[in-house]
Amino acid sequence: MSDTIKTDVVIIGAGPCGLFAVFELGLLDIKCHVVDILDKVGGQCAELYPEKPIYDIPGLPMVTGQGLTDNLLEQIKAFDPVFHLGEMVESLERQEDDTFRLVTNHGTVFDTKVVVIAAGGGSFQPKKPPISNVAEYEDGSVFYSVRKIESFRDRRVLIVGGGDSALDWTLNLQPVAGRVTLLHRRDDFRAAPDSVNKMRALVEQGAIDLRIGQVTELKGPDGKLEAAAVKGTDGTVFDIECDAMLPFFGLTMKLGPLAEWGIHLHENLIMVDTEKFETNEPGIFAIGDINTYPGKLKLILSGFHEGALMAQAAARRISPDKRFVFQYTTSSTSLQKKLGVS
Amino acid sequence: MSDTIKTDVVIIGAGPCGLFAVFELGLLDIKCHVVDILDKVGGQCAELYPEKPIYDIPGLPMVTGQGLTDNLLEQIKAFDPVFHLGEMVESLERQEDDTFRLVTNHGTVFDTKVVVIAAGGGSFQPKKPPISNVAEYEDGSVFYSVRKIESFRDRRVLIVGGGDSALDWTLNLQPVAGRVTLLHRRDDFRAAPDSVNKMRALVEQGAIDLRIGQVTELKGPDGKLEAAAVKGTDGTVFDIECDAMLPFFGLTMKLGPLAEWGIHLHENLIMVDTEKFETNEPGIFAIGDINTYPGKLKLILSGFHEGALMAQAAARRISPDKRFVFQYTTSSTSLQKKLGVS
Repeated sequence: MSDTIKTDVVIIGAGPCGLFAVFELGLLDIKCHVVDILDKVGGQCAELYPEKPIYDIPGLPMVTGQGLTDNLLEQIKAFDPVFHLGEMVESLERQEDDTFRLVTNHGTVFDTKVVVIAAGGGSFQPKKPPISNVAEYEDGSVFYSVRKIESFRDRRVLIVGGGDSALDWTLNLQPVAGRVTLLHRRDDFRAAPDSVNKMRALVEQGAIDLRIGQVTELKGPDGKLEAAAVKGTDGTVFDIECDAMLPFFGLTMKLGPLAEWGIHLHENLIMVDTEKFETNEPGIFAIGDINTYPGKLKLILSGFHEGALMAQAAARRISPDKRFVFQYTTSSTSLQKKLGVS
Repeated sequence: MSDTIKTDVVIIGAGPCGLFAVFELGLLDIKCHVVDILDKVGGQCAELYPEKPIYDIPGLPMVTGQGLTDNLLEQIKAFDPVFHLGEMVESLERQEDDTFRLVTNHGTVFDTKVVVIAAGGGSFQPKKPPISNVAEYEDGSVFYSVRKIESFRDRRVLIVGGGDSALDWTLNLQPVAGRVTLLHRRDDFRAAPDSVNKMRALVEQGAIDLRIGQVTELKGPDGKLEAAAVKGTDGTVFDIECDAMLPFFGLTMKLGPLAEWGIHLHENLIMVDTEKFETNEPGIFAIGDINTYPGKLKLILSGFHEGALMAQAAARRISPDKRFVFQYTTSSTSLQKKLGVS
């Protein structure tokens, strides 16, 4: 494999703990590759509460999830990490020379001396609707995300849900699709008021349909969707004809493939020591919400501490013969040079 | 003792870790008293590098020691801690009911269920000048700080040093003292330029004396200072007549009386576990630079983590029968109410 990426560290997860690990490793002259299944950095902070205030980051009386992410990106800028976004690490194997080979679902291959799992609650995965035969239609008719708008051109699209994703895709697909129907279990939407207003205007104009109810069954032969049976709030059942269905029921967290990597788990969390935050597999570390140890609190500030101690241990694994002198950013001109501030 | 302060927690040390401990304890409805030997909050951050940038506080790409202190004070404002500044805890004793009695050098007495030692490198103590017989004069003639300006009225005061303390007290004592002489080992001062200019103007006016050299010996019978023998830069030795000497040679860190409290130490650091950050004495916790455990790094961010885990354990000691539900500031309206933001 000529395009294998050789590196010292791969960090799985670009949430706040993964980002700060880049900083602590960077101070020790270690460059990082960072893989995240989301298409942006920030993890849960940026995905689940970008605009919600967080009050317990020490020294930041109030910061939003996005604000914290932006601050951390600014803080690690000088260390220039390489991000691989929208990718999931699917396999991890220890090789004969004690390095690790990681392969993502996009075929990216890393050979790395150290793996840092900073995957938070695990991978974000779409929640599936409670429709008994939905699986039969997932290969071509039911989609949990939109990769290409064009693939819905002239199709009759049924969008299900009442949050931002459902409303945003209703508005974005309306000009392209043959017909868009938005279905929600009640006539009340959690999405941004502006999107809701735009959606209602399209309904008034007759450009889209809005229906209230819940899908009970999908219809059509050989996984080819023709209609969704819907139960209305008054108990009546009716069909909505459609070629494609997009349910947006939110995201859930799954541990994903890392459950199969031989790492010791306790209640779906990775067991680590509190000296190095290393797993039972030497060279594989775990920091942030995904790890556990006596006293563990799932706090971002704890993940920062874990990343700092992990970095010291990782550096010694990467360069066993190097002598490390612990320095402070406040007093060390050499650290300040690395940070680009001196 | 009618004026004994009964409380749940006394924190020794008002540096960043002590301040953030107030926050984590506050989230759990615990009020704190905070004692610090310095006359202001912020610890080393505010005393040693108030204007120096710190680069490794996660989420704050650059902050000064004073800036971090100010941010933390803002963050804990809602919890309204009681500060006892300029006081040193001199004794700590476990009482029969398993609470602790703490007494400071000012006679403040606390009865508390939990003690949190967040004393950084220990107590700041003045560096003593290298004068063989200085100790003989420390009871009445040599002072390392000024408690009452009036006690120097009409006395001939010799101030030794070239930093801000030396210059500030030269300017402040000049109107009160019989005569002020400022002595420094060279004619170059580290103090604020404005203070240096004011001092030089007083010398020009003949209102104070400025001498260059180093004190070699103190003179006078029975610890009553009469003169200081000084060696000039050209090797000549001369006397400066004076009734009081104030050497300002900076501060040094001493572990102080806590070395005598029966807490297990390792190389002058307090040994703690990594689950609760508790010492060998149940109910006495230690966080920040003063503690040690496998992997310990003297980083402010680690002290924040230690404070968070300590708070959980302290709360269970304070209210053993209460059920604690771990909550997040981002999602819990009850925490947001405590913080005064909801």
